[in-house]
This record gives sequence, structure tokens and C-alpha cells, in this order.
Amino acid sequence: MFVQRTMRQAIQAHSAISRPSVYTSKVLSSRFYSSVVAPLDASKLEIHPSKNQKKLQENKDLVFGKTFTDNMLVVEWEAGKGWGTPQIKEYGKLQLDPSAVVFHYAFECFEGMKAYKDKDGQTRLFRPDMNMKRFNRSANRIALPSFEQDELVKCIGEFLKVDDRWIPKGRGYSLYLRPTMIGTQESLGVGASNKAMIFVIASPVGPYFPSGFAAVNLLATSDKVRAWPGGTGDAKVGGNYAPCIKPQLDANKEGFQQNLWLFGPDHQVTEVGTMNCFVYWKNEKGETELVTPELDGSILPGVTRDSILSLARQWGEFKVSERKFTMKDLVQADKEGRIIEMFGAGTACIVCPIKRIHYDGHDINVPLDPTDKTSQAGKLTKRFNDAIMDIQYGDVQGPKGWSVVV
Amino acid sequence: MFVQRTMRQAIQAHSAISRPSVYTSKVLSSRFYSSVVAPLDASKLEIHPSKNQKKLQENKDLVFGKTFTDNMLVVEWEAGKGWGTPQIKEYGKLQLDPSAVVFHYAFECFEGMKAYKDKDGQTRLFRPDMNMKRFNRSANRIALPSFEQDELVKCIGEFLKVDDRWIPKGRGYSLYLRPTMIGTQESLGVGASNKAMIFVIASPVGPYFPSGFAAVNLLATSDKVRAWPGGTGDAKVGGNYAPCIKPQLDANKEGFQQNLWLFGPDHQVTEVGTMNCFVYWKNEKGETELVTPELDGSILPGVTRDSILSLARQWGEFKVSERKFTMKDLVQADKEGRIIEMFGAGTACIVCPIKRIHYDGHDINVPLDPTDKTSQAGKLTKRFNDAIMDIQYGDVQGPKGWSVVV
Repeated sequence: MFVQRTMRQAIQAHSAISRPSVYTSKVLSSRFYSSVVAPLDASKLEIHPSKNQKKLQENKDLVFGKTFTDNMLVVEWEAGKGWGTPQIKEYGKLQLDPSAVVFHYAFECFEGMKAYKDKDGQTRLFRPDMNMKRFNRSANRIALPSFEQDELVKCIGEFLKVDDRWIPKGRGYSLYLRPTMIGTQESLGVGASNKAMIFVIASPVGPYFPSGFAAVNLLATSDKVRAWPGGTGDAKVGGNYAPCIKPQLDANKEGFQQNLWLFGPDHQVTEVGTMNCFVYWKNEKGETELVTPELDGSILPGVTRDSILSLARQWGEFKVSERKFTMKDLVQADKEGRIIEMFGAGTACIVCPIKRIHYDGHDINVPLDPTDKTSQAGKLTKRFNDAIMDIQYGDVQGPKGWSVVV
Repeated sequence: MFVQRTMRQAIQAHSAISRPSVYTSKVLSSRFYSSVVAPLDASKLEIHPSKNQKKLQENKDLVFGKTFTDNMLVVEWEAGKGWGTPQIKEYGKLQLDPSAVVFHYAFECFEGMKAYKDKDGQTRLFRPDMNMKRFNRSANRIALPSFEQDELVKCIGEFLKVDDRWIPKGRGYSLYLRPTMIGTQESLGVGASNKAMIFVIASPVGPYFPSGFAAVNLLATSDKVRAWPGGTGDAKVGGNYAPCIKPQLDANKEGFQQNLWLFGPDHQVTEVGTMNCFVYWKNEKGETELVTPELDGSILPGVTRDSILSLARQWGEFKVSERKFTMKDLVQADKEGRIIEMFGAGTACIVCPIKRIHYDGHDINVPLDPTDKTSQAGKLTKRFNDAIMDIQYGDVQGPKGWSVVV
């Protein structure tokens, strides 16, 4: 592997393989003094919508992430120049050189967010500022360029107007948006990418649980690790995902829907599949507590996670904690009958009830709703789901900035 | 995020967003019972070479990974069908749907290898079996399909015949080959990719040190961590690379060419930039020893690393160890004047001499060649370089299978 060097000495020594120093300084200056280069500017947006209108699917036929709308939003970046003209254009293939660094070094990060139709026919986004902030943080972690957050939201708003007919109506239905940033430098040198692209694609989706909640069985995984201190667990970068598939398939083969990711010799609980993890229990002090792992750098700072914590704190009915907890704590709480509910949380499902965790040869059976044997979700789990959905669809006024009409 | 589930129960619950079960079983059966699907078969190779012959660059103008040959080798895979027809065709852009999973979840792994012209005009590869084995292992780690290793080497051999004029002549010059595998499923579900592609591109390169060795200064990095047990440090997957760029830029800003990656509370030495790390010293017992971190799952099993260890063991002149060692060990050895040489090792440079390590506010000054003040490489470092190059260019007969005429 060749590593790109930026020091003068290195450049002299390696002149045949490194980029010339003038290039490197451009990259650095554009990265660190971004005022000299073009910002991402929604006022420059060009709209060339597709002339072909694809046939819409019926709500019942929607499959996540498989069908995309007529158009896409694209904006390119170049070192020393900054962001180009944002464009809404026909959805279609990306044409990239096989040397593009996105194919080799995983210069890629993304967001997952949804657009909802409210009862007045308005289009709403849920806390888009949170997604945009995280998108910038993810990009920064892998030396991709930063962008003007509000401007990208404006462009996405215009994109949603152009593809308005694709936003499915009905509670539980939405248009899933996938803002993605990739490094497109056409050269194999391992260094900051000198070109990048943001694209946003959109896929109509139905409810995660089309016929009511379905609680999941988890396999606690400790031989493979999702993230670690000093790694990228708190960034939504592509490299966090592919390595998790094999453990997921292994769990599936043994009859579990998802992994419960553990970390460290004490088997700290971290995430559930690609969701944040919540436990509602009587803690060891006898307090009723909602607990989720703290944002220590290896946990993805989920928008749903943050929303659940905010709502719970606003309700003020039980203790709300962000802190480490371990499988030993869970096993002990199970033995003593202190676990009330557990769930995963993410944009896709809002909440996903957990009913069983297989760990170290034993099962932890997590209660659902003891007052309703047919229920597949605990009362608090369901309450979070309904409260967040009410705000997403504009039926209830949430905190400022949570539901944004575009 | 949506996670693809494969269990019947999950499929029932999530039928609106998951793939149908028939699809999932196909993926699984093709992955686990690969005999029913088509193997990668070099005898099916189709050659449609480019009609345009690009102008060759002079050796002195070669820049790593920036110019590519006239053609490329491509072979696609599909779940349930297996490998398609390998094709050598004009080098050109890949056309991929923006939903292709390589852009989102880093389904990508690669190899770096070189083709050399020997004095008789024959083309040689260096230990291609090692690259192919690692390529398959990397693919397996991220649930990409496996392939028939010898068949891919045969295809690469044909590719080298077609682009023979691009293999630069002269010691230190070679054609860098970049076999890459990407997941091309056109759907955002987080699961094993149902489509994949191997492509091989080639770039003529010059010596890593065009005007003699240039030893590097390293910044020991402990706040960011390259790899972790249970992660992917021993696989050549894209996700290992982008997260290392920011620490590299930080090191560059402070005047260092590369990072020295550390691990754990005891600051174990792991890798140098994108290279394996070797120390030649009098160890704490007074033995003359060549030591490199053991392959504990977080170290890339480098082909050059293995070749250096093999040669050193064959020479039998000093102790050769694969084991953990820490910065504390290095600091102590420096204080006692026991460090003889240090170097990084990789396909690009073969060896890269190290002259200084900045750690915890102090410098470790690593000796180069005490008998020659102008030398930028230690005697043993240089000896490994020459011995490996002799074999790569066919001037000296190496161990069986090390230099393969194609």
C-alpha cells in the first residue's frame, strides 16, 4: 500500500509516487480554510426532472430500499473549488472510474431519514438538523468535506417537492431518504479524497411492523465487535456495516433475528443489530429506570435514541440514564425479575421490542406486556412509538424543530 | 436502519420491508452450497481489448495509481447463479445504481500486487497465491462470495498478456495490480449482497524511493485505533482505510510522514501507516532479534511481512519472533541503545526505513547505518529489500512459488 505523504521531505523522497506538494496544500487549505472555496448553496440548485414518471407501487407492495423515486439530488465537490451546482435530475446510474477511492478505501458515509405526509397534505421531516449534523461529523471522521447543513436541507425540500407524488400517505408510511457522501478521487493514493459527491435517493416505505409489533430474539455476540474506542462506532460510515453481516447471518442460522453487540471483557451492552439499545427496569437500587449506553465514542448517536431520551425526561416519570451496563447486570436483573421491557431504537422501526436474549448458553426472557398476553410490545415501548409517530405525522406538536414542514 | 432478517418469523413480521424468503434461501444456499452455482472459470474468459492504445508514460513520470492501462478484467457474481463470464475489456467507468451497497455499507475488499519484467522479458508475479488467499478471506469476512483462486490468477495472467506493453522495464519498476471485489446489490437492505463484481485494474509504477532510501518520521497514535480484536484488522477491506486518513493528516501537520498505530492500554505496537512493522534489536535478554507483531486478528497478514520472516528464518542468523511488544519496550530499548533498525514492510515499498518515533512527548531516534552517515537505511533493512527484489525480478531463484512466470 502507498500512503500519501504531505510533508516536504516525504514529497522530495517520494516524488515519483506522491502528488505534487501544490496539490496537497490545496487539499489542506480547502479543508481547513473552507471560506476560500464555494459553499454548498441551495440557491444555485438546478432542477432537470425526469421526463419519465415511473409507476407508483401500492402501499401494500412497498419493500424497503428497493424502489426509488423518479429523481435524485446530486452535488459534487472538488478540492480547492468547493461545492458545485446542486442538481435534481433523473434517478440513474452513477458513472465512476474503477479507481475511485469509494471502491477501495470506503470513503462513504450516509444518513437515514424519512419524509412524512401529514393530514393536511404537507410534507414533514423529523429533526433533519440532527441528521445533517451527524452527516457532517461522519464525513469529517473520514476526511470527506463538510457542507452547509441548512442548504442541504433546502435542496432536499425541493427534491421532495419534485417527487411529491412518491411520498406515500397513511400512518406508518413515509418516503425514506438516503443522503450519501462518497469520495470520488480517481487515483489509488491513500490520502484525503480530492473529489467527493453527495447524492440523495428516496424510497417509499411502509411500516416496519405491518401487522402489529413483532418482538425479536437476539443472540449476544462477543467474538466479533462492532466498534471500539478510537474507531468509528459513533459515525455513520459505510465501514461499520459490512463487517456486521457475517455475525448477523450466524445469528440468523441459529434462529435469532439480530445480534446484541457486546464490548469489552465485562461484555458491556452496546447496540442491537443496527439500532440503539434501551432497557426499562428496576435497577439494582430499586429505582425504575430507562437506561441506554452512553455516547462514549463507540455508540451511534441515534436521532430516535435522542428523541426517546428527551421524551422520557420531559415526562419525568422515571429515572433516565445514559451509562454503561453489562450482560452480568442484565442476567442478575433477569434472575431477580427486575427487567420490565427492552427495545431497539432506530429510524426504520422507531422502536423494536425484544423478547429474548441468548447469552453464554442461557436465555434471558424479556417481558412484553404482562396485562395482554397477545401483545408483542411492552407498554412503554409502545408509548414511545406512538408519541414519536404522532409528532412525525404532525398530529401532535412536538418540541421545537422536531417536525419541520418543507 | 433496516436489517435484513432471514428467519421465517422475522420475514412474516416484516414482509413489507424484507426480501421474500425464497430470495433469502437462494442467497444462503448459494453461499453455503457453492457447488450448485457456477465457479469462477478462466476457460470462459472473453477478451475484447480496447481499440485505443493510450500513450505510455516515461518511467520517470510514473505516479502511483494515477494512470491505468488500456484494459481491465471484470467478472460478475450473482446469488444463486455464481460467477459469470470473465471479461477483459477497455478500461472505463463502472456504471452502478446509486443504491448499490458498495456505496453505503462498504462491501469492498482488495489486493495490491505487482507484475515484474525479468531480464528475459518474461512477466512475473510475486507469491500471487498469498494475495488470492487473503482476497478470499477478506471477501468472506464481509459476506462477499468466494472464488476459485487459481482461476483468477489465470485471468490476471491473460490480462497481463493483453496489456503487456504497460509493464515497465527496469529494476524498481513494475505494473501495480489492484484486484477489487465490491457488492453491487441494488437495494438498501442491510444483509449479504446478492450481487458482486471482481475487477482488476493496473497502474505502472516506479520505485517507492526513486533516489535512494528516505527514512521516515512517525507519530505514535493512541487516541485513534486502527483495528480491534473481533474487528477487521486482518482483512484487506475498504473500511480499514478511510478512518485512518484523519490521524494521518494530523501526523502530517505536525511534521511526521506516517502514524505508528498502537493498541491497548499498554500501547502495543501494531502497524506503520498501511505497512507491517519490524524491529531489529538486542532484546531484553540480550538476544539479537527481528520482531514483528503476531497475527492476532488485528494485524494485516502482509505478503512482504511473511516473505521477510521466511527469509530471516532461512538465513538463521538471528532470532525471529512474531509476538506482542509495546512502546514501553521500545522506549527502554532506546534508552539502553539496543535498537539496531526499524522498518515498515509492504508491497509498495518492500521496506521503508524508520528513523524517528515521536511518542508521549519524547523522540525515539532509531539508528540507520552507523557505518555510513549518508545512508537512509539500515544494513538489514537494505538486505531484505535487495533479497526480495532479486526474487521478484527473477535474478535469484527464491523459494518455490514465490516468483511465478505468467
